Order: sequence, then structure tokens, then C-alpha cells
Amino acid sequence: MSVKNAFYAQSGGVTAVINASACGVIEAAREHPDQIGTVYAGKNGILGALHETLIDTNAESAETIRALRHTPAGAFGSARYKLKGLEENRAEYERLIEVFKAHDIGYFFYNGGGDSQDTAHKVSQLGQALGYPITCIGVPKTVDNDLPITDTCPGFGSVAKYVAVSTREAGLDVASMAETSTKVFILETMGRHAGWIAAASALASEQAGDPPHVILLPEVPLDEARFLARVQQSVENNGYCVVVVSEGVRTQDGQFLADQGTRDAFGHMQLGGVAPSIAAMIKNALGYKYHYAIADYLQRAARHIASATDVEQAYALGRAAVEFALAGKNAIMPTIVRESDEPYRWHIGEVPLEQVANVEAKMPASFIDESGFFVTEACLRYLRPLIAGEDYPPFRNGLPDYARLKAQLVEKRLPPFAG
Amino acid sequence: MSVKNAFYAQSGGVTAVINASACGVIEAAREHPDQIGTVYAGKNGILGALHETLIDTNAESAETIRALRHTPAGAFGSARYKLKGLEENRAEYERLIEVFKAHDIGYFFYNGGGDSQDTAHKVSQLGQALGYPITCIGVPKTVDNDLPITDTCPGFGSVAKYVAVSTREAGLDVASMAETSTKVFILETMGRHAGWIAAASALASEQAGDPPHVILLPEVPLDEARFLARVQQSVENNGYCVVVVSEGVRTQDGQFLADQGTRDAFGHMQLGGVAPSIAAMIKNALGYKYHYAIADYLQRAARHIASATDVEQAYALGRAAVEFALAGKNAIMPTIVRESDEPYRWHIGEVPLEQVANVEAKMPASFIDESGFFVTEACLRYLRPLIAGEDYPPFRNGLPDYARLKAQLVEKRLPPFAG
Repeated sequence: MSVKNAFYAQSGGVTAVINASACGVIEAAREHPDQIGTVYAGKNGILGALHETLIDTNAESAETIRALRHTPAGAFGSARYKLKGLEENRAEYERLIEVFKAHDIGYFFYNGGGDSQDTAHKVSQLGQALGYPITCIGVPKTVDNDLPITDTCPGFGSVAKYVAVSTREAGLDVASMAETSTKVFILETMGRHAGWIAAASALASEQAGDPPHVILLPEVPLDEARFLARVQQSVENNGYCVVVVSEGVRTQDGQFLADQGTRDAFGHMQLGGVAPSIAAMIKNALGYKYHYAIADYLQRAARHIASATDVEQAYALGRAAVEFALAGKNAIMPTIVRESDEPYRWHIGEVPLEQVANVEAKMPASFIDESGFFVTEACLRYLRPLIAGEDYPPFRNGLPDYARLKAQLVEKRLPPFAG
Repeated sequence: MSVKNAFYAQSGGVTAVINASACGVIEAAREHPDQIGTVYAGKNGILGALHETLIDTNAESAETIRALRHTPAGAFGSARYKLKGLEENRAEYERLIEVFKAHDIGYFFYNGGGDSQDTAHKVSQLGQALGYPITCIGVPKTVDNDLPITDTCPGFGSVAKYVAVSTREAGLDVASMAETSTKVFILETMGRHAGWIAAASALASEQAGDPPHVILLPEVPLDEARFLARVQQSVENNGYCVVVVSEGVRTQDGQFLADQGTRDAFGHMQLGGVAPSIAAMIKNALGYKYHYAIADYLQRAARHIASATDVEQAYALGRAAVEFALAGKNAIMPTIVRESDEPYRWHIGEVPLEQVANVEAKMPASFIDESGFFVTEACLRYLRPLIAGEDYPPFRNGLPDYARLKAQLVEKRLPPFAG
């Protein structure tokens, strides 16, 4: 087998552990210098391949690569950029092949969610379509937990842990102040189409009355009257109410609640922010004093409170991608296969890219309880192992000591991309 | 010296470490059974004394009391309730004395901020005014860091650490996405009158270009044109811009930016949320894609990322309150006295309550740089040791294992308070 270089890129929204997958890919590749020469990382994802802005990971020490395992966000830069079909934009594919040829790239590792696995799938077809053979392996990643077939997606376990921890902590805060101050606290989480992240807040509850008291999922159209009744009941029973709301929650007629046209003092449309809408709804109907938090990027970047299980899986999937490639596999994505819930046991499996590209996995109906405002025991059983274990980054001067790359670009060999 | 019982109460907004002070008070008291009988904790702060709802801390095991050290929020309940002056509401003071007499209370430990130290001061005068001798010691607490004389206030170091960590993490996220997505990220922090909390985000920056790029403080009226120019410059230089904004930031004519009349779809006034206003300002003037986070209670409840220095000081101040009381001192508050910045050395001092009651300490002008959009090296030197060290709570099932009290109420001996 001849030595070929590899291309690795991060794609789409970043997570607390996508760099752990990068670490797995690079460390595994370095163990096989007889088969993989240099791992080039795309600067800003696939754009790095199109623009021939390739980061030379060989310029990074083993120590720095190891530090990626505990560093959040996309160390090489990510991109929201989806390749069109081969027929629609042949120029992009021809450019990719030019760049791959110019740098002797024979392996393509693409780290992303559903859209990205679609790109990986298209690239894997280049061999037949354009006569350039390349081994193409997807590496799963998404906080949304919406990839099919794999038991879970790296990034989700950590955001789930962040949300559960934050719900427990803020819940204690509200409980202690409720007698004379805030009675309702609302935490807005990510999750535009699937409620996994908001659902994970349920892990904070261990005894009757524990927060969260209401979870609003995108899967369940908001019934305002029933919602308000549940909030009121919680305030009456517990003295307070903690609501966790997914940014993607919708009205009965299918509109995003966040898009209902909140306007600022100048009459400008305010984008985002479902929490203020929920807060106003409660204030107007029930009069309770409220507070709300919008976790936004904090939740998916919170490497300091990452799930050890999630970190381990992210790293293992990165390694597996390389190992599968070297075993001669192509056009697949390694997956997590769950063997048992408790004790949690899993191993790495695989799935053809065409089966994951553009498929969105929603929460199963059996995971949402009858009220529509909470999750079932089956859901909790699924979620529990995913947040298990802590994996603290090292700290220096009171702050997490995250990797700083040299991010040295490889000299360009081609003219700029005109596409 | 005869044995007397003690009353302990938590007051005002809670913090990640106020229970560490409670732990200090109760553990120190338990070491002196010859002088202090039972520590009664007011349920919901001073309301517990007025309504004779006293939690018997003797019903809690040593293990549970120890667990308070790592438990956020107010385990006994706090209250936003300020006693009026003796002349204005004599009935309340007479009631306090009745309750103290009925339960043989000779010590009053009051754990709170500036308003609360005013209450503590008033109670300390009861001895002379109403003929009931009571030893009264304040225990400082406030995330706002706005108590005078003491070097810092327990609660601040931990929220400072949370904000600095979150700024670093979200900053990495934005940096990795900026090429094709969000260019401006805004983090809204607490701090209605003083900018300490937002200022602490500056600790995340170690090299030129690191986030945060702009800090908006309540001390500096917002100059919109200069602010926008700075945001634009950061996007041009760094590819992105991270703004940390204090909820208390004001316009040039002294209005809170958060009170500028944002209205929802129904025309209802939206309270709070300076981040959306700042986001809209940037979007309208510069067109950048933005995201914002509002940390709200998450920041002050985040015991999982508390500063070890803060926890240690909170605990030490609780212990010191008891030790000062047993040494015959009265009407004082223990303080943190800084001996040196680096290495950070401190000891416990004391200040008469009348000197801290109702006095608000702002950030010194020398801590804000010439631009008004960042802090000085003097400020960083002050802040650095306050976030030093980690003090992780124990975890169980992937979540922090926080104390659950029995919170057993003492039998009432008096008729209900009519006041």
C-alpha cells in the first residue's frame, strides 16, 4: 500500500468535543506513517479544500494534538457550507480533485452532522464519477443528536450534561428566592427541530417536585392554556416553576414561537429568543415574576463540564474512522452501538454514508409522556449514560488551558479557485 | 458565659458559595457547645425570624452540613426583605425580640450584601434601643462585589470565573464559525450598578486578539458610534467580535438600555434583556450575523465551576463570624484583607457594620481603560487571584450531588405575627 496524505475537516456547528474526534483522527493517522503521510486539516472546513488553505497538522506537537481532546469548538475552523449535487456544481468537485491531486490526498475524513455526511457521501462518489479514487469516511458530530442509526452523536452528551447541571443549579437558586422574588425561571436551549437537548434537562430531577417542572419540545405544538395551567400548578405545589424550552418550540399552527414578531423600541424585528415570549405569556396570564436564561453557544462550547462518555466516544470515533479507512472500507461512517443501558456498554459499528446523509432522527414518541410536558422513563434510561462521568480540562490561572494551534498553512500549488 | 442559641439567615440574591458560609457558621458553632446551643436558620431569611419559622440545623448530620460547602443557592431560603427603621416599624423589631426571647437566641448571624448589613446593623442596636442584648455579626455575600472595605465579597469570585470561562469557550466557538456564520457574539452578565462581573470576562484574554473584544460597563455611558466602530474593527481584524455587556449599561442620558421599551408581538413591554438591544444595534448598523447568550441565574448558581479561592473565603468568613462573636465582638462584619496580589495572600479582618450598611463600592476609575471598552492591567491584577483554583462538587450519575436538607422546623411558641 502506498503512502497517501489525508484531508480532515470540521463542518457545521461546533461542539465541546469535535476536537476530540480531530485528536483521534490525527493520533491514529500518526501511528501509521507507512500508510498515511500528513493529515491536512481544512481551514474552515470544506472551504479549506476548495481554497487550498490546508493546515499542516504535522507542524503541531504531539502535546498540542493531545490537547485537542480537551479543547472545545473547531480548532481548524468549521463552515456552514454544503456542496451541491455533482450536476449542479461540477466545478466544485473538479476543484476538490485538483487540490487532492496536488497534495496527494487519498483519504477524506469529514466531521459533521447530517448535511455534512451528505457532502462526504458525494465526495465518496468522486472515484467513479470523475476517476479520482479516494477513501471517504464520515465522523459523526452534532449537539442535536439527530443522526440516524448511531446510538448518539458526539457533542450531544456534553450539551445534555451542561443543560442538566444548569437546570439543577438554577433550580436551587429559584427555589431559595421564590418566597419573595422570582417564581418562574425559563431556560432556553438549542434544538430547532428535535427536543433532545431540552429533554436532557429532565435528568436534573430525582425526586417529585424537583426541577424542571415543564419541558417544551419542538415535537409537541404548544397548547398555551394547558401550559399555563401546568406552570400555575407547579408554583402552587412547589412555590416556583422551572421551564426548559427548546428554541424550536412551535405554536399550534406550526409557526416557530421565536418568530412571532417581537419588536424592539425602533420597531425592528427581534430574531430568536423564545424564552422572552414564554416569559411574557406567563407574566400576562399569571402575573408571576420571572427570569430567563438563554444559554446559546455557552451550552455547546462548555468543555469544562463535558461528559466523559461523550469525550471518549468522540475520540474513539475519530480513531475508528482512520482504522476503517486503513482496513480498506469506504463511504461509511463509524457509529456508536449500544449494547446495554445499565451498565452502559457500547462498541463502534458502521453505516454506509448514503443511509445517514440528510436523514433527521427525531425523538421517538415513546420518549414523550402523555402530558407532552415531560419525558418518559424510557427516555431517561436512554439519556442517563450519555452524561456520565466528568472529564475536566487542565486549568491554568483559574481558566481552562485550551490548545492553541500554530495552524501553519501548506504552501499553495494551484491558482485560486474561481468557482 | 452562658449557653445561648444562634440565629442564622441568608439574605438577598443567592450565590454559588453562600452555603459555604452557612457551613462555616454551623461547623464553628458546633465546636463550641459550651457557648452556642443550637443554630436556628431562618426559613427564607429574616422572614423566618418574623414568622417564627426556624429550621433546626441540629437535625442535619455533620455530613449534610459539610455538603453545604459545595452546594449553590440558599439552602435555608433567602429573602428580598429589608427591615425599615426602628421608628417606622417598631412592631417588626419587637417581634424579632419576642422570637429571640422565645428561643433563647443570643447570636444573630446575617449573611448578605449591603442592604442586609444595614438590617444586621439595626438588629445590633436592639440591645440598647429595646433592652434585648444580642451579639450581631454580618457575613458578607454578593456576586456584585459592591461591599466597601472588604477586598472582595464571597460569591463574586465564582461568578467571575464562570463569566471568564464562558467567554473563553464561547469565543472559541464563534472564532471557528465566523468565516461562514456568526460574526458577533454578545454575552449579557449581571451587574446592575457595578461592572465587576462583566469586567471579569477580560481574564479570558491572554494574547492580542483574544476575546472579549469589547466590554460594556454600567460605569461608562454607551457611546453608540464609538462602540459600533470598535465592533467593526474587531470583525475586520479578528474575523469576529465578542461583546460582554453588563445588564446595567446605560445610554448617554442615563437610561438603562434594557428599559428602552422593547415590546413583544402583543405590544407588551419586555423587561430585561440588554443583549437583544445591543444585537439589534449591531445588526442594523453593520449587518453582521449575531448570537447572544443571557446567563442570568446560571452564572451565580454555577457551583460546578466555582472558584476555590471564593469557596475558601466564604467558608472562612462564616467561621470567623462565630469566632468573633465568641470573642465578645459585636456589630461587625468580618472582611477579606488582601496582603499581596501575587502570590495572593489574605487574612480575615473586621469592619463595624455601620461602615458597610448601604454603602455601594463601584469599580475604581483606574480599573477602566481610556477607551472605556476594556479594563486595565491594575484591574486584571486585582481580579486574577479571585478566580484561582477549582473546587468541584462531588458528582453522582453525571450530576453534581448537592445537599438536601431535612429543613425541620422548630415548634412554634408564639402566636402568628400580625405585623
